[in-house]
Amino acid sequence: MTSPDPDTGLLAPGWADSPAASATSDGAFLQALLDAESALTRVQARLGLAPAGAAEAVTGAARADRFDVRSLADRARAGGNPVIPLVADLTKAVGQEYGPSVHRGATSQDILDTAMMLVAARTLDLVLADLDRVQRALARLAGEHRDTAMPGRTLTQHAVPTTFGLKAAGWRSLVLDARDRALGVRDGLPAQLGGAAGTLAAFTAYGAGDPTALAAAFARELGLEAPLLPWHTLRTPIADLAGCLAFTAGALGKIAADVLVLGRTEIAEVTEGSGGGSSAMPHKANPVRSTLIAAAARRAPQLAATLYGSMAAEDERPAGAWHAEWEPLRDLLRLVGGAARDAAELTEGLRVNADAMRRNLDLTHGLIVSERLSAELADVLGRARAKELLTELAGRTYAEGRSLGELLAQEPELKDVDLGELTDPARYTGSAGALTDRALERR
Amino acid sequence: MTSPDPDTGLLAPGWADSPAASATSDGAFLQALLDAESALTRVQARLGLAPAGAAEAVTGAARADRFDVRSLADRARAGGNPVIPLVADLTKAVGQEYGPSVHRGATSQDILDTAMMLVAARTLDLVLADLDRVQRALARLAGEHRDTAMPGRTLTQHAVPTTFGLKAAGWRSLVLDARDRALGVRDGLPAQLGGAAGTLAAFTAYGAGDPTALAAAFARELGLEAPLLPWHTLRTPIADLAGCLAFTAGALGKIAADVLVLGRTEIAEVTEGSGGGSSAMPHKANPVRSTLIAAAARRAPQLAATLYGSMAAEDERPAGAWHAEWEPLRDLLRLVGGAARDAAELTEGLRVNADAMRRNLDLTHGLIVSERLSAELADVLGRARAKELLTELAGRTYAEGRSLGELLAQEPELKDVDLGELTDPARYTGSAGALTDRALERR
Amino acid sequence: MTSPDPDTGLLAPGWADSPAASATSDGAFLQALLDAESALTRVQARLGLAPAGAAEAVTGAARADRFDVRSLADRARAGGNPVIPLVADLTKAVGQEYGPSVHRGATSQDILDTAMMLVAARTLDLVLADLDRVQRALARLAGEHRDTAMPGRTLTQHAVPTTFGLKAAGWRSLVLDARDRALGVRDGLPAQLGGAAGTLAAFTAYGAGDPTALAAAFARELGLEAPLLPWHTLRTPIADLAGCLAFTAGALGKIAADVLVLGRTEIAEVTEGSGGGSSAMPHKANPVRSTLIAAAARRAPQLAATLYGSMAAEDERPAGAWHAEWEPLRDLLRLVGGAARDAAELTEGLRVNADAMRRNLDLTHGLIVSERLSAELADVLGRARAKELLTELAGRTYAEGRSLGELLAQEPELKDVDLGELTDPARYTGSAGALTDRALERR
Amino acid sequence: MTSPDPDTGLLAPGWADSPAASATSDGAFLQALLDAESALTRVQARLGLAPAGAAEAVTGAARADRFDVRSLADRARAGGNPVIPLVADLTKAVGQEYGPSVHRGATSQDILDTAMMLVAARTLDLVLADLDRVQRALARLAGEHRDTAMPGRTLTQHAVPTTFGLKAAGWRSLVLDARDRALGVRDGLPAQLGGAAGTLAAFTAYGAGDPTALAAAFARELGLEAPLLPWHTLRTPIADLAGCLAFTAGALGKIAADVLVLGRTEIAEVTEGSGGGSSAMPHKANPVRSTLIAAAARRAPQLAATLYGSMAAEDERPAGAWHAEWEPLRDLLRLVGGAARDAAELTEGLRVNADAMRRNLDLTHGLIVSERLSAELADVLGRARAKELLTELAGRTYAEGRSLGELLAQEPELKDVDLGELTDPARYTGSAGALTDRALERR
Repeated sequence: MTSPDPDTGLLAPGWADSPAASATSDGAFLQALLDAESALTRVQARLGLAPAGAAEAVTGAARADRFDVRSLADRARAGGNPVIPLVADLTKAVGQEYGPSVHRGATSQDILDTAMMLVAARTLDLVLADLDRVQRALARLAGEHRDTAMPGRTLTQHAVPTTFGLKAAGWRSLVLDARDRALGVRDGLPAQLGGAAGTLAAFTAYGAGDPTALAAAFARELGLEAPLLPWHTLRTPIADLAGCLAFTAGALGKIAADVLVLGRTEIAEVTEGSGGGSSAMPHKANPVRSTLIAAAARRAPQLAATLYGSMAAEDERPAGAWHAEWEPLRDLLRLVGGAARDAAELTEGLRVNADAMRRNLDLTHGLIVSERLSAELADVLGRARAKELLTELAGRTYAEGRSLGELLAQEPELKDVDLGELTDPARYTGSAGALTDRALERR
Repeated sequence: MTSPDPDTGLLAPGWADSPAASATSDGAFLQALLDAESALTRVQARLGLAPAGAAEAVTGAARADRFDVRSLADRARAGGNPVIPLVADLTKAVGQEYGPSVHRGATSQDILDTAMMLVAARTLDLVLADLDRVQRALARLAGEHRDTAMPGRTLTQHAVPTTFGLKAAGWRSLVLDARDRALGVRDGLPAQLGGAAGTLAAFTAYGAGDPTALAAAFARELGLEAPLLPWHTLRTPIADLAGCLAFTAGALGKIAADVLVLGRTEIAEVTEGSGGGSSAMPHKANPVRSTLIAAAARRAPQLAATLYGSMAAEDERPAGAWHAEWEPLRDLLRLVGGAARDAAELTEGLRVNADAMRRNLDLTHGLIVSERLSAELADVLGRARAKELLTELAGRTYAEGRSLGELLAQEPELKDVDLGELTDPARYTGSAGALTDRALERR
Repeated sequence: MTSPDPDTGLLAPGWADSPAASATSDGAFLQALLDAESALTRVQARLGLAPAGAAEAVTGAARADRFDVRSLADRARAGGNPVIPLVADLTKAVGQEYGPSVHRGATSQDILDTAMMLVAARTLDLVLADLDRVQRALARLAGEHRDTAMPGRTLTQHAVPTTFGLKAAGWRSLVLDARDRALGVRDGLPAQLGGAAGTLAAFTAYGAGDPTALAAAFARELGLEAPLLPWHTLRTPIADLAGCLAFTAGALGKIAADVLVLGRTEIAEVTEGSGGGSSAMPHKANPVRSTLIAAAARRAPQLAATLYGSMAAEDERPAGAWHAEWEPLRDLLRLVGGAARDAAELTEGLRVNADAMRRNLDLTHGLIVSERLSAELADVLGRARAKELLTELAGRTYAEGRSLGELLAQEPELKDVDLGELTDPARYTGSAGALTDRALERR
Repeated sequence: MTSPDPDTGLLAPGWADSPAASATSDGAFLQALLDAESALTRVQARLGLAPAGAAEAVTGAARADRFDVRSLADRARAGGNPVIPLVADLTKAVGQEYGPSVHRGATSQDILDTAMMLVAARTLDLVLADLDRVQRALARLAGEHRDTAMPGRTLTQHAVPTTFGLKAAGWRSLVLDARDRALGVRDGLPAQLGGAAGTLAAFTAYGAGDPTALAAAFARELGLEAPLLPWHTLRTPIADLAGCLAFTAGALGKIAADVLVLGRTEIAEVTEGSGGGSSAMPHKANPVRSTLIAAAARRAPQLAATLYGSMAAEDERPAGAWHAEWEPLRDLLRLVGGAARDAAELTEGLRVNADAMRRNLDLTHGLIVSERLSAELADVLGRARAKELLTELAGRTYAEGRSLGELLAQEPELKDVDLGELTDPARYTGSAGALTDRALERR
C-alpha cells in the first residue's frame, strides 16, 4: 500500500498554522527523537563509554531532513514504535565505524519518552508565551472597565449587576492559575533513561561505572530534569501534562463561553475584533476565535482522561497503555497551543460595548437591583412591609411596562429615600472594583 | 508562519500504512468535500437550477490533486472551517461562467457533514471487510479447537476448565455484534443539505420548487441516505457512528486483552503469528498486534464521549460542539480501521499451543475440578462429608505437592468412584462444545 | 466502623424523587438480585434439578425487606461483590431443608448481571414512557407553531429566519431516535447464566441434561431474552445500554441547550412553565428543568465511556472491568431517567413567546433576509450590482439605525420589486413548514 | 411519590464501609452545608452585621440530625439545589428572632461550594493518612526485597531481570507523587463567598464596610483558605481536585495492575494477604483488593474529565456546568478514598514469593540475560561472532530444552569466561539496588 496523504490540519482550524502545530508535527517529533539519540551518544562519549568520534558522527547524522518520516511511520508497525526503524536508519547513516555507538544500552521507550518531553517542553514554552499575552490583554481590559457595570447573569437570567472589569479580572485570574500550573510542570519535565527494564543494566554491561550519572548527564545535555527513577511505568510526567493542559483548555474555555454569550446578537456586549464573515449574510460576524477555543475545551478533558487512564500501566513496559499516550498527548499539546494562540488574538482584539451593557441593565425594569431594595427598604419600612411592597411592584413593572424606580417614587412612604441612588444598577456593583484591584495586583 | 510538517502517522503504528489511514487522510477529506460540491451542482443542473454546463465544469474541477490542501488548512482559520476557502478556490477553478453555480444555496456545514458521511461510509466498508476476515479466522479457530480444554480464569485465577473453542466462538460473537452495529449505521448514513439555518430557504430563492426533492436527489447522487430533516444540530448520525466505533474497538479490545494474557511468557498458550522482535533480546516476540489493538481500545471510548457530548448543540449551528466533532470522528474511524486490520492479521496468524493449555490445567494440582467434585461427591458421601474431605485434601495438595486425584484415590470411601473421569479437567468443560456449535451457526 | 449515612439524592436534584430513582435504588437492586436467585431455583425445580418445595421456599424468602441491605453492602467487600453475602443470608433464610438449592450451579456474576438487566429493563420502561410524553408535547408545539417565524441562529449570531415549529419538530425527531434506540436495546436485554467460567458445567454436575435449556428457561422466567452465549466477558448488553443512554441524554441535552439560549433575559422567546425562583430577586425565574437536563447531558458521555472501556475484559471474568460497570451503569440509568422526567415537565409546560420571536427577527434591521435579497435581486440587477448595493446598504442600516427594507425602498432600480414580501423575515422560512409536516408524520 | 430506598453502597464494594464513605455521605454533606451556614452567621455576628444571639442560635440549630435529609433531597428539585430548602428549614429551626440572620447576603452556591470544600478537605485527610500507610508498607517491602531478582516484563514478555525492591520502590515513588499533589491541593482549598453574582454586594447592602474582610473571616472560621476572588465560575479548586484525585487513582491503579499480573496462577510471585474465597472452588484466592482498586482506576479519569469540562462555565453561575460537578466530585472522593484504604490493606498484607520469582527467571532457559551476553561476549569474540553464536544457541535452547548457560559452556572459545556469573539472572540487575536505595531516601 502506498502511504496516504498526510494530515495537514484540514480538519483543525483550531491549531492549523500555529506555532504549536509546528512544534508538534511529525517532523518535530522526528527531530526530537534524533536529539535524544545524539545526546545519548555524546554523553556516552564524554564519559568514555563510546569513541570520541561517535559523538560527532551521530550528532551530524541526526538531522530530521535526512530521514524519510513517512517510511519510518510505516515501518513502525512491525515492532509497534517508530524508534526501532529510526535506530536502523540512523545506524546506517552514521556508518560502520560509529554505528555500534547508536542507541547503545537504551530501549525504544527511553528515546520516545525523552522526545515526548522535549516536544512538550517546546510547546509549553509557546503556550506560556501566549498565556502571557492573554493575561496582559485581560489586565488592560479589567483596568479600563473597572467600573463598567453590566448585568450579572446566573442560570441564564439577570441576577444583580457586576462589572466587566471584575469579569475580565476573573478570566485573568484563571489564566494565571493555568500559567502557574503549566510552568510548574514544564520546569520538571524529565528525561527518560532506564534500558530494557528500567534497571540501567545494559549500560553497566557496556562499561558504565555509574549508570545513574549517565542518566543525569543525559538529562542535562537535553535541558530536561534528571528523574529519581526511570519512569517507564511511573507516569507522573504524562499525568501532570494531562492535568495542566486540561486545566489550561478549561481556563480558556471559560473565557470563550462568556464571549459567546455576551456576543449574541441580542446581547451584543462584546465583539471579537475580527469575526469570520459570510458572503451571503453580510451582517454576520461570527465569533470564530471563541468557537474554536470552545471546541478545544470540549475535547481536552477526554484526551486527558485517556492519559490519566494510562497510569495503570502493568509491568516494566505495558502492552497498550504506553502506546495509547502518544497521539492524545500530542493532540492535547497542539489543541491547547492553538487555543492559547486564539485566546491571545481574542483578548487583544476584543471590543467591549459599554452602552449595550448599560442598556441591558435596564431590561428587567429595574428589578436587577431588587436584592438591594429588599435589604435597604427593610430598614425604612420593616422587613415584612418592604417585602410586600416589592412583590407588588415587581408584578406591576412588566404588566405596566414601567420601571421599578418610577413605581417606587410614587410611594409616599419612601419620599425621603434617595431612590436614584438605590435603583441605579451601576451603583450596586458591591466590591467589584475592590476585587478587581486586588486581582490585578497578582503577577 | 510557514506550515508545519504534516502528520504522517509517525506516532500511530496502530493505523499508519493502513487502508483506513488512506480513507481518512486530509487528501481523502478534501476529495469528499469536492465530491459533495460537485454532486450538488450536478443535481441542481439536472433539476434546471443551474446551467447544464456547470455540472461538467464543476465535476471536472473537483479533483483533490488540483488544490493545495495545506493552504486550505491554513486559511480555514479565518472562518473556522475549510469549506469557506475551498469554495473560493473551487469557484476560481471553475471559471467565470459557471463559478456562480458552485455551492449555490448551501452552507459550509452541508458540505462538511456530507463529506464526513462519505469518509465514514468508505472507512466503515474497510472496517466491515476486515471484521469479516476476523470472524472467519475465529470460526476456523473455534472449530479446530472445539474440544481443546484450557483453564477458565476469573479474577486472574484458575476457576474451572473451559475450551479454546468456546473462547474463540465468544470472540467471534462479539465481532459479529460489532459488524451488525457497524452495518446498520453504515447503511443509514445521510447526506446533509439544509442551507444557512436548515430551512432550505436559499434553494427556493434560487428557484427550486421543492427543495426537499433536491436534498433527496443530492443524497442519491452520493450513495447516501436522504434524511428526514436537515441534521445540522440533530446529530444522530455522528452519535451512531460514535457508538458503533466505540463498540467495535471494545470488541477487538476484548480479543487483544485475552491474547495478551494467554501469550505471557509464563502462560504461553497462544502466540501472535509474527511478533515484534528485539535485537538485543532474541527470545522476545512481542505481541505487537494485540498491543496496538489494546491501545486503540483504551482511546476509543473517550473519543466517542466527545462526540456524544456534541449532541447538546445549541441553535441552528453551534459555536464549538460541531467543530469539536471533526478530529475525534476521524480519529475514531482510523483507530478502528487500523485495529480491524491488525485484528485480521492477529486472528489469521494466531498460533494456539494446546499442550501448554493442558499443562496449565494441571497447575492447581487438580483443584480446577473441585467444583465438580463438590457436586458429585456429595451424592456419594453426603454434602457435609464431601465438603470436609475436599477441604482437607485441597490443603494437602500444595503442601505435599501431590494431585487431588492421587489423594482421593487413597480414600477407601471412594473406591467405587471413577476418579479418572471425575478429576480429568478435559472432561469438565460442561456445555462448552454445544455452545461453540451453536455460536458458529450464526452468520 | 459504623456504616455511613446513605445517599438519598441530596446532591442529585436531577434524579431525586423520580421513578427512576426508585427503580435504581439499592433496595431495587437487592430485590432484582433476589428475583434472579428465586427464578433460578424455580426453574431448576421445574426441570427436576431441585426439590419442588425449594421453589416455594426460596421465592417466599426472596423479599428485599427481609434483608439488611447495609450489612450486605459492607460484607460485599470481602469477596468484591454483594452476591456472596446475599447467598449466605438467603440460604440461611430458606432454612436447612432447601438451603442447598439456593444459587445452585450459578456464579455471582450470573446473578448480578441478570439483576442489572432487570433493573435496566424496569428503568428503560420509565424512560420510554417519559420520552413518549416528550414527543407528544413536542408534536403539539410543532403543530401549533408550524408557521411561527423566529431567528435562525448559527455560531450565536442571527443567520436567516426559521420557525419554532421546525425547531420543535427537530427536537421531536431526535427524541424519537432516542426512543427507537432505547426500545431496541430494552427488548434485547438478556439474562445471564453461565456458571463459574461460562461453560454451564456445574449445572451438568448437578444433573442437568441440557443446561442451555435451563438458561433459556431462566431468561423466560424473568421476562428477559436468552443469550446465544453466556456474556460474562462479551459485554454487548452493557455497551448497548451505554450507547442508547448516552444518546438519550444527548437528545434531551439538545432541547435543554436550546431552551437555555432562547430563555435568556435578552432573548425571552421561551420560558419554562415553572421556573425556580429566588426570594431576594423576584424577577428571576430560573430554567431549572433545562439546567438539570443540561447537567445530565454533560455527565452521561463520560459514564458511557467507562462502560465502553469495560468491554476490553480479559479472561472469563475480569479483575476490575466488570466491577467498574456497576455504579456507572446505575448512574446513567437514573441520570437519564431523571432527565426524561424533567424533559416531560419542560416540554409540557414550555411557554412560547411568538411576539418576542417576531421582535428579535427585526434586531438586525432586516439583514436577516440578506441571503434572500442576494439571490433574488441578482435576477433584477445582475449579480455584481446586487452584491454591491447590498453591501453598501448593510453598512448603512446600523450606522443610520434604519431598516434594510426602508433603504431599499429608496432605490429607483427596485421600484417594481415587491419589497414588502422580499424583506419580511416571516416570509423567508423556506421549507420549514413542509419539513415540519413531514417530520410530524413520523410516529 | 414516596422516596426511594437510598444508596447504601450495595454496588460499591470499593468504598462501602470505608471512612471516606462516611466523610462523603449525604449526612456528611448536610452537616458541611450547615457548618457553612453557621460559620457565616457567627462571622457576621462577630463583625456586628448580625445580632450576637444569632451566632449561638444558628450554631445550635445547625446539626444534621435535626433535619430530614431525604425531604431536603426531594425539595431540592424545585430550585435545582439543596441549599434553598435547607435555608428554609434552618430559618424555621432558628426561630423568628434570629431567623433573618440565616444565610444573610449569601447565595446558594456560596454554601454548596464551601460545603464541597469542607467535605473534600476531610476526605483528603483520610486519603493522605492511607497513602502514608501505603508508602510505609512499600518502603518496608522495597528494603526487604532490595536484591530479590525477578523477571522484568515488557509487552507481557520477559525482557531482562529486575528486582522486586525496585518495583516496590517505584510504586512508592508514585504514591509519594500522589501524596505531594493531594497535599498541595488540600492545603489550598478555599471557602466560597460572593453573593448573588460574586460582587459581595448584598453584604454591603446589609451593612458590611469591607465585605472582603468578611469573606476572609468566613474562610478562617472554617479552616479553609480565603480565595483571591469569588470562584463561582473560576473553578480552579474543582479542577485541582479532579487532577490530584485522578492522579492518585492512577498511582494506586499501577500497583493493582502489577499485583494482578504477578498474582496470576501461572506466575504466583505475589499474593494478597487475604484473598476473597469461593466456596465451590477452594483453591481460589481472588485478589479482591487489587481488583477493586483497578476498578476505581478505570472510573476516575472519566469522572475527572467531567469536572475539567465544567471549567467552561458561562456567566456568573452556569446552567448545568456547576450542577454537573456535585456527584462526580463526591464519586471521585470516595472512590479514591476507598482505593487508598484498599491499597493500605493490600500493601501491608502482600506476600512475596521470592522462590517463584527465581523459578520464573529460568523460564526462558537463560535467554533473559541475552542482552548482557550480547554486550559482554562482543568484547571476547568480536561483535559479529558474538551475535552469530547467540542467535544459534538461542534457537537451540527451546528446541533442545537446555539452558543457554549449558550450551555456552560447550563452546571452546569461551573457556576462560566466567559463564556462571554472566548467565546468572540474579547478577544482571544493573542499578536496581542503587536506584532502590536512592528512591527510599525520599520522604
